[in-house]
Amino acid sequence: MSYLDPKTVNRQWILNRRPQGAVVRTDFDYVEGTVPSVADGDVLVRSLYFGYDASQRIWLTEDGGYMKPIMPGEPMRCMGIGQVVESRNPDYQPGDLVEGFMSWQDYAIVRADGPMPLRHLPKADFPLSWNLGVFGVGGLTAFFGVTDGLKVKEGDTVVVSAATGATGGLACQIARLLGAKKVIGIAGGADKCRWVVENVGCDACVDYKDPTWTAKIAELAPDGVDAYFDNVGGDMLDEMFLLMAPQGRILICGAMSQGYTGVKVQGPTNYMRICTHQLTVQGILLFFYAAKIPQAAQQIGQWVMEGKLRVTENRHAGFEKAPDLLPTMFTGKDPGKLVLHVADPA
Amino acid sequence: MSYLDPKTVNRQWILNRRPQGAVVRTDFDYVEGTVPSVADGDVLVRSLYFGYDASQRIWLTEDGGYMKPIMPGEPMRCMGIGQVVESRNPDYQPGDLVEGFMSWQDYAIVRADGPMPLRHLPKADFPLSWNLGVFGVGGLTAFFGVTDGLKVKEGDTVVVSAATGATGGLACQIARLLGAKKVIGIAGGADKCRWVVENVGCDACVDYKDPTWTAKIAELAPDGVDAYFDNVGGDMLDEMFLLMAPQGRILICGAMSQGYTGVKVQGPTNYMRICTHQLTVQGILLFFYAAKIPQAAQQIGQWVMEGKLRVTENRHAGFEKAPDLLPTMFTGKDPGKLVLHVADPA
Repeated sequence: MSYLDPKTVNRQWILNRRPQGAVVRTDFDYVEGTVPSVADGDVLVRSLYFGYDASQRIWLTEDGGYMKPIMPGEPMRCMGIGQVVESRNPDYQPGDLVEGFMSWQDYAIVRADGPMPLRHLPKADFPLSWNLGVFGVGGLTAFFGVTDGLKVKEGDTVVVSAATGATGGLACQIARLLGAKKVIGIAGGADKCRWVVENVGCDACVDYKDPTWTAKIAELAPDGVDAYFDNVGGDMLDEMFLLMAPQGRILICGAMSQGYTGVKVQGPTNYMRICTHQLTVQGILLFFYAAKIPQAAQQIGQWVMEGKLRVTENRHAGFEKAPDLLPTMFTGKDPGKLVLHVADPA
Repeated sequence: MSYLDPKTVNRQWILNRRPQGAVVRTDFDYVEGTVPSVADGDVLVRSLYFGYDASQRIWLTEDGGYMKPIMPGEPMRCMGIGQVVESRNPDYQPGDLVEGFMSWQDYAIVRADGPMPLRHLPKADFPLSWNLGVFGVGGLTAFFGVTDGLKVKEGDTVVVSAATGATGGLACQIARLLGAKKVIGIAGGADKCRWVVENVGCDACVDYKDPTWTAKIAELAPDGVDAYFDNVGGDMLDEMFLLMAPQGRILICGAMSQGYTGVKVQGPTNYMRICTHQLTVQGILLFFYAAKIPQAAQQIGQWVMEGKLRVTENRHAGFEKAPDLLPTMFTGKDPGKLVLHVADPA
């Protein structure tokens, strides 16, 4: 059985030049290639959904961050969902639905080894694309970030930036589920702030475009902030250092404000609060949690089934839109996990 | 019995203006005051030794950092050793030798409460002034910083900046005692580097004035640095972020390079390595370890007695020198703990 129509061209969006500042649509070229042939050990996957993650911008830097950089001429890498078309790897069978590192093309040979191999998707009663969001990198990052990184516990006052984002919105809810006394979101504009309070269980949401936002957090957290989930970096992180309680914890999950243009970004000038208030600042990288992922996924699934974790998706459709959507990760988009529907499973 | 000669004037060095940049001698005025009278609950202490700590510069800022700022007109605060002259507090008797927060004056009413009360000094076979160094803030900070903050363990590669300093030199030795595979110091100039290798058990010491210093550390630590004890901040911290191993730990103990001119200093632009390498960055403040201090002091004492922890003191004498020595904390001084001998115990 094959899901591959041999006449199908392999549409691709390839990187034509490394973006210097903000990523733009014209950093990518549309080309039509051939469907690759399958060597021993290989798995050929047809793309069904592309996920969008801020870390894609890091992969576009010369350094690549924690992964191999994407090179000009290569299709843009993404987390994706696909269906196995042909397999010469005993762990994958044609028809299998899988999630993992993929790229902006219809068909690709995908790596089935490494620290984050293609994972088989469970049969479940939720939309397939949720495997890129609440059951994917964003959900797991929120889970491990709030539980292990920030060690949120009963009575904590927690602040989450980019609270309308896929990760931020889940982090708010997980902090609440762990017993946080107060969860405060940060978002841009009154509409988004309202969305945060109504949808991800925050007691309050502060608009960072309001010049008095730090005073508002200080008022909401009179004893200081115990745990801060930082997706934004820049001035926001810098100001948050001054709002932390002694022995507070900060999770560096991302730096949206810096456009992820590379490793060197605006450094937090108030970092000496780490010393004077004995703060702990920690990062999060799913690679290091590989062994704990099944247990985490089970907990997340239970929360979702019980209606305790609300999932928001910002879904688009059409392969042609792939490069249009990436810049919106940094310039503002609707709340929730940004996904692009490319094809339906066979 | 009284140790107070009623004719004695109370010499004082008071802050005349808050230093804006580097602290200078002329930020302090010499005045002669009277010996304060003792109210109920008070303890009057005669100064014997003044200790010097980089954090004194923080106390001189408007913010004060983790303590009440020193106000113009007040004697300069320091950690000190003294002898109780008169007491209306049942916990302290005339003649007692004590260590704690004191100030640049011959006689002072000192606080006997708070999170770090005056502590009684044990009778011991080592010089009294060591209570300001290896048995004082520096030694305890090195101990808790290396054990609890950095969690140094067998096989670790450890880097310590300001390795000739009172805290840094002890941190190097304690890392070694905990089983570090390699301990690398950072110091300024060939002489200081030689001193570090010969005196505090480092395998190597890198001269930060050498423009290739980062390449040298990369060569000495081919798998990356597991634990970095940062006393310097600024560019050095920034570069060290790039030299850390995945899941490495950084202790922010100080920021000598920034002259401690306030909370806002040069932020580390490479801090996103916290995210991409899942680093942990932590501060240290002794207040939070108050309950564990007796046990730590016992361990330190045992290491000293067994000859496993080498103590270096940079001792000066004469009350008049108090304000001359403070700037040398930031502009360079001989290795070891800087102390000023003011008087002998009665």
